Amino acid sequence: MKIVLVGASGTIGKAIVKELGARHEIVAAGSRTGDVRLDITDPVSIRTAYRQIGRFDAVVCAAGRVHFAPLASMTADHYAVGLKDKLMGQVNLVLLGLESINDGGSFTLTSGVLTDDPIVSGSSASMVNGAIEAWVGAAAIELPRGIRINVVSPGVLVESMDKYASFFRGHEPVPASRAALAYSKSVEGAQTGKVYRVL
Amino acid sequence: MKIVLVGASGTIGKAIVKELGARHEIVAAGSRTGDVRLDITDPVSIRTAYRQIGRFDAVVCAAGRVHFAPLASMTADHYAVGLKDKLMGQVNLVLLGLESINDGGSFTLTSGVLTDDPIVSGSSASMVNGAIEAWVGAAAIELPRGIRINVVSPGVLVESMDKYASFFRGHEPVPASRAALAYSKSVEGAQTGKVYRVL
Repeated sequence: MKIVLVGASGTIGKAIVKELGARHEIVAAGSRTGDVRLDITDPVSIRTAYRQIGRFDAVVCAAGRVHFAPLASMTADHYAVGLKDKLMGQVNLVLLGLESINDGGSFTLTSGVLTDDPIVSGSSASMVNGAIEAWVGAAAIELPRGIRINVVSPGVLVESMDKYASFFRGHEPVPASRAALAYSKSVEGAQTGKVYRVL
Repeated sequence: MKIVLVGASGTIGKAIVKELGARHEIVAAGSRTGDVRLDITDPVSIRTAYRQIGRFDAVVCAAGRVHFAPLASMTADHYAVGLKDKLMGQVNLVLLGLESINDGGSFTLTSGVLTDDPIVSGSSASMVNGAIEAWVGAAAIELPRGIRINVVSPGVLVESMDKYASFFRGHEPVPASRAALAYSKSVEGAQTGKVYRVL
């Protein structure tokens, strides 16, 4: 399979390359690194990247930013960051990728544990993750040509604990290699409309 | 209690007035009707309305639009309608209402059955409902002064079936009066961070 991997240089992205790269052709797409430049917040950049890549069998997105801050300091502008980036960035990857993806291809997006296990300062992440998960379920029933879509919801990563431990007290961190298995299940399996929680 | 009801003139709004109005003071807020003008898509309008109303004990929102259309025709602009209206409209009602709500007060928002029971043409509704439900769970753990927040997720309404039946085949419609009970539970109960599903 030819798999477009957005966010290949991140912690999860690298683990996905290790898991899927052995069996498939990976096209690494990133805003600053990779085989192709792709900024998910910019629909023009997404279209340009897809044009360069040509036909493909799968898109995996392991990218997407949100603003972390205490609820009391959050404004509509802070929420707009995550809505534009992690939410609509991923949605646009799907909408704009539909014309280049092969029959029976798949999209795999990323949400995260905060959907239903919130932390202080994580209200934007919860909002965006909940939106992605519900949208994937809805999109799955309307995709044409046997195209599938799933979302992986990883817990906080072992590899990120030096940075985030104080926000995620009590959360059991998961190795990126375990999260990568869920992306493999989505791409190489046959299910659609699923949320794969890696906890 | 003094309860600000946004969307009081709608089908659910009227049922909420019937349920809560007997026991409490209702301030009806609407974009075109009611005691106070309030357009949830406009933060200035929200601020102005709250200033007119003064202190209150609860906000109930039974308003919020999204764009319904087949996935193949949906663009980022179509999704923006629901993100601005039903999602950020309700979020702004909370963020901007915090300074006027009394200690121990409550916010009650509205999502809907499409979060995890999607229909064709409903992908924006699913996205927005999923976002609201997850955000409410996150906001609940950060609200100060004993302020609570919940969301009611009603199924398609009996009263709306003449308009929407063809979109909701197989869904068991719920009377608005049953949905209204969930708003009562949220406002007059003591729970927080809950999704009350009325199915």
